[in-house]
Amino acid sequence: MPVITSVEVEDVRFPTSLTAAGSDAMNKDGDYSAAYVVLRTDGLDTAGAPLAGFGLTFTIGRGNDIVAAAAIQQARALVGLEVAEIAADMGGLYRLLTSDSQLRWLGPEKGVVHLSLAAVLNAAWDLVARFAGKPLWRLLADLTPEELVDVADLRYLSDALTRTEAIEILRKAEPTKADRIAELEATGYPVYTMSAGWLGYSDEKLRRLCQEAVDDGYGHVKLKVGADLAEDVRRLGIARDVIGPDRKLMIDANQVWDVEEAITWVAALAQFNPHWIEEPTSPDDVLGHARIRRAVAPIGVATGEHCHNRVMFKQFLQAEAIDFLQLDTGRLASLNEIIAVLLLAAKFGVPVCPHAGGVGLCEMVQHVSVLDFVAVTGDLTDRVTEFVDHLHEHFTDPCVVAKHPAGAGAGYVLPTKPGYSTEMFPASVAEFRFPDGSYWASRTPAESGASGLTPRAPR
Amino acid sequence: MPVITSVEVEDVRFPTSLTAAGSDAMNKDGDYSAAYVVLRTDGLDTAGAPLAGFGLTFTIGRGNDIVAAAAIQQARALVGLEVAEIAADMGGLYRLLTSDSQLRWLGPEKGVVHLSLAAVLNAAWDLVARFAGKPLWRLLADLTPEELVDVADLRYLSDALTRTEAIEILRKAEPTKADRIAELEATGYPVYTMSAGWLGYSDEKLRRLCQEAVDDGYGHVKLKVGADLAEDVRRLGIARDVIGPDRKLMIDANQVWDVEEAITWVAALAQFNPHWIEEPTSPDDVLGHARIRRAVAPIGVATGEHCHNRVMFKQFLQAEAIDFLQLDTGRLASLNEIIAVLLLAAKFGVPVCPHAGGVGLCEMVQHVSVLDFVAVTGDLTDRVTEFVDHLHEHFTDPCVVAKHPAGAGAGYVLPTKPGYSTEMFPASVAEFRFPDGSYWASRTPAESGASGLTPRAPR
Repeated sequence: MPVITSVEVEDVRFPTSLTAAGSDAMNKDGDYSAAYVVLRTDGLDTAGAPLAGFGLTFTIGRGNDIVAAAAIQQARALVGLEVAEIAADMGGLYRLLTSDSQLRWLGPEKGVVHLSLAAVLNAAWDLVARFAGKPLWRLLADLTPEELVDVADLRYLSDALTRTEAIEILRKAEPTKADRIAELEATGYPVYTMSAGWLGYSDEKLRRLCQEAVDDGYGHVKLKVGADLAEDVRRLGIARDVIGPDRKLMIDANQVWDVEEAITWVAALAQFNPHWIEEPTSPDDVLGHARIRRAVAPIGVATGEHCHNRVMFKQFLQAEAIDFLQLDTGRLASLNEIIAVLLLAAKFGVPVCPHAGGVGLCEMVQHVSVLDFVAVTGDLTDRVTEFVDHLHEHFTDPCVVAKHPAGAGAGYVLPTKPGYSTEMFPASVAEFRFPDGSYWASRTPAESGASGLTPRAPR
Repeated sequence: MPVITSVEVEDVRFPTSLTAAGSDAMNKDGDYSAAYVVLRTDGLDTAGAPLAGFGLTFTIGRGNDIVAAAAIQQARALVGLEVAEIAADMGGLYRLLTSDSQLRWLGPEKGVVHLSLAAVLNAAWDLVARFAGKPLWRLLADLTPEELVDVADLRYLSDALTRTEAIEILRKAEPTKADRIAELEATGYPVYTMSAGWLGYSDEKLRRLCQEAVDDGYGHVKLKVGADLAEDVRRLGIARDVIGPDRKLMIDANQVWDVEEAITWVAALAQFNPHWIEEPTSPDDVLGHARIRRAVAPIGVATGEHCHNRVMFKQFLQAEAIDFLQLDTGRLASLNEIIAVLLLAAKFGVPVCPHAGGVGLCEMVQHVSVLDFVAVTGDLTDRVTEFVDHLHEHFTDPCVVAKHPAGAGAGYVLPTKPGYSTEMFPASVAEFRFPDGSYWASRTPAESGASGLTPRAPR
C-alpha cells in the first residue's frame, strides 16, 4: 500500500522572453514558467518504476515563486496519505485541500492560491492515474456517471446544474463511449495552432508559419490582435491570403479593450471573417462579454484562460456571453473543477475548446478534450483544442499532434502512457529551476528579470 | 526633496482564533493578520518626525506570508522615487505597480497579487497624506474633480461610467463640501457594530452585547447566520427582543449557501425583519445575487468584502444585484480603485457601506466613507459603516467611535492626524510578527497553526 512520503515544489522558468514567441497585446515579455509539484511515494507503479505524481500550473515568470510557496503549503497536507485511499476518493482529497478557511480567504477560489491548488491537484491526478496504470483520460472515462460526478465540485452551481442533471448527461453518453474512443484513435482530437500569430513576428515569418500550418493539415489559425488596428488589418490580410477563404481564422485580444472599444475594433476586422474574438475585455466581465457577443455576431466570442473558477463559467453560460469556452488546466482546480465546467457547458450546449500553449498545458488539455468527447458530450461540432509547438521537449510523455491517415486534418494523438503527461525531465528542472538552475545561475539579475518591476519616476 | 529609501514588509498575526471572536459559518478559526508595508524615506513629515508610509491588507492567518512575499516584490519598485513626484501623480504610481504583466498573470487583478497591491498602495497613500500633513480623507476631498478622477482606475468601466460622467458627479458635490465636513465634525459618520453577533458566542453573551450596542447608541446590529437554521431562529429572536422593533438587524451568511438555498433560508428568517442579508452565496456570483435579491425583497442584499475588483462591482450594479455595496480597503487596490467604485455606486444610486473589522480595516474605512459623503454623493441615506471593537490598541491613530452630542447615534469621529491611520506600534509588530515575534516564538508549531492543513485520511 504505497504512501505519499514527501512533496517537492520547483519554480521552473524558461527564458521565452528572449524570442518574441508568446508576445501579445497585454503580455509582451513572458518567461513561460511552471510551479511544478512532485508527490513522492514509497511504492512502485504498474511498470515497476518508483511511483510518483507530477503536476504543474503555468505562469509567465515573476511571481512563479509566490505560486510555488502557496503550493508547498497546500501539498504538505498530502504527506502520509495512502495512494489507494486518495484514488478511491479524489472528491475527498479536493475537499481536504479546499477546507482551509485561512488560505481560502486569499482568493476565495481565485488567484495565486487557486493556481497553486491546480498544480497540487494536477499532481494528485497524475499520481492516481499512474497508480491505476492508465492515461488520465481513460481512468476518468472508465468511471461510472455517479463516480465522475462524485469527484466534481458542484458547489454554487445548483441553480444552473443539479447533481441529477449532471448524472443524466453522463448516462446518455455512457453506452457509446467505446465507439468514440475508437474514432479518436483513428482521427486524433481536432486541434488548432497558435504558433503562427504572435505579435512580435515579422510579416515574412507570419506568412511562412501560416503556410506551414496549412501544409501540416490545420484547419484553423489564430492571430494576436489589439495593439494597433492598422497592423491588425495588414496581418489578418496576410493570414487570410495564405490560408484561403475556407479555413478558420481566430483573433485574440488578450483583454486589452473596454467593452465598446472591443465592439468597434472587431467591426473593423470583420472583413477577414474571424471565427471568434478571444478575450476581448476583462476576463471578469461576464456582462461585458454578453454585450460584445450580441454586437459582433455572427463572429463568436471566446474566453476562459483567465476565467478563475466554475462560478464565473456558470455565469458566462447563464448570460449567453460566450460561443466557445476556453477553460485552462492550470487555472481551474484540476479535474475536480474541470469536470463540473464540462458538465455545465454540456448542459448549455456551448463547445469547450481548452486554452493551451505555455508550459505543459497542451500535455494536459488533450486528456480533458478526449474526456469531454468520450464521456460527456459525444460531440465534436465546433470543438477544436489549442496547440502551440514549444517546450514539449522538456516532458517525458509529450503530446503528439499528427495528420491522421483517417482524419480530415491535424489532431492530438491519444495519450497511451499512464498519468496526466505532466512529468518533466529531471535535467530540464535542473537547468531551468529559478534562480539556481544552471541556465539562470549564469545570468545577471537584470538578464534574469529577478529584480521585478523596474523603478522609474511615475511621470 | 524626500526619497523612498527602503521598504519593509512584515507578516503580523494576532491569535484571535483563541476566542470565538471572528467566527462565522465559513471561517471558524481565523487569526486576524496583516501583511504590513512600511515605506521609509530620508525626509521629515510636517511635524518634524521621520517621514514614512504605513499600509496593510487584512488576511485571517495562514498564507499571510504569501501575501507579504508578493508585496515585497511590488514595493521594491518604489525605492528611489521622490515622494513629491509620487504625491503629484498617484495615478502614475498605480500604473507603474500594475504594469508588470508577469505578476498580473497571477490574478489578473484578484487574489494574492491584488491583496498585496492594496497593502503597498495603502502605504503609499498614507505616505503622501503625511507628506501633505493632512488626514487622507481631507487630502482627497481637497482635490478638484479632475484630479480625483485622474487617480482613479476607470479601465474596463466605460460601458457603465465615462470619465465625463465621473467628473460631473464630483462637480455636483463640490460647492457644498465644506458644509458636509462641518456636519460630520458635529455628528460623526454613521456606524454599525459587528461586535455582538459572532457564531461562537453564547446566548447570554449575545444578549448582553446587543444590550451594550443599544446603550452605546447603535441603531444597527449584525449577526452571523448560516450554520444551523434552528440556531439562527433562536439567536435572531434574542437579538430582536433586545434591540426592539425599530433598530435595524442585519444578517451575514459568509457565502455558505447555493442560490436557491439562500432564498429558502432567508425566507425562514424574514419574520425577524432583517435589514439586509450579507454574502448569501459565492462572492463571484453576480447573477446569483441578482436572483436572490429579486426573491428576498424587501430584505436587501449586501456584498463586497470579497469582491475582488471594480469590474465585479460594475456588474453587481449593472445587474441590479445588490442594495448595499460593501467594498473592502484591503481587497481593492487602495484609493485608486476605491474611488472608481465610489463613482460607479454614485452613478447607480447604490449606497456604499464599507466592510470593516479585521485588522486596521476600521482605521481605513472611516476615511473612505467620509470622502464618499463629502466629495462624491453628499448623501447619508442608508449609509452605515461597519465597526468592530478589537485590535485598535495596536494602532498609533486608532479610529474612535463615539456618541456625538449633536448626533442621533454612534459615529466614527473624523480623523484629524495626517495619513491613513494605518501605522502600527513597533512594539505590536515585534510581539506578533510571525513566526519570530515574541508571542509566536514561544508557541509550539501546533499552537501556532504553522503546519497549515492537518493531514488526515480523505475519507
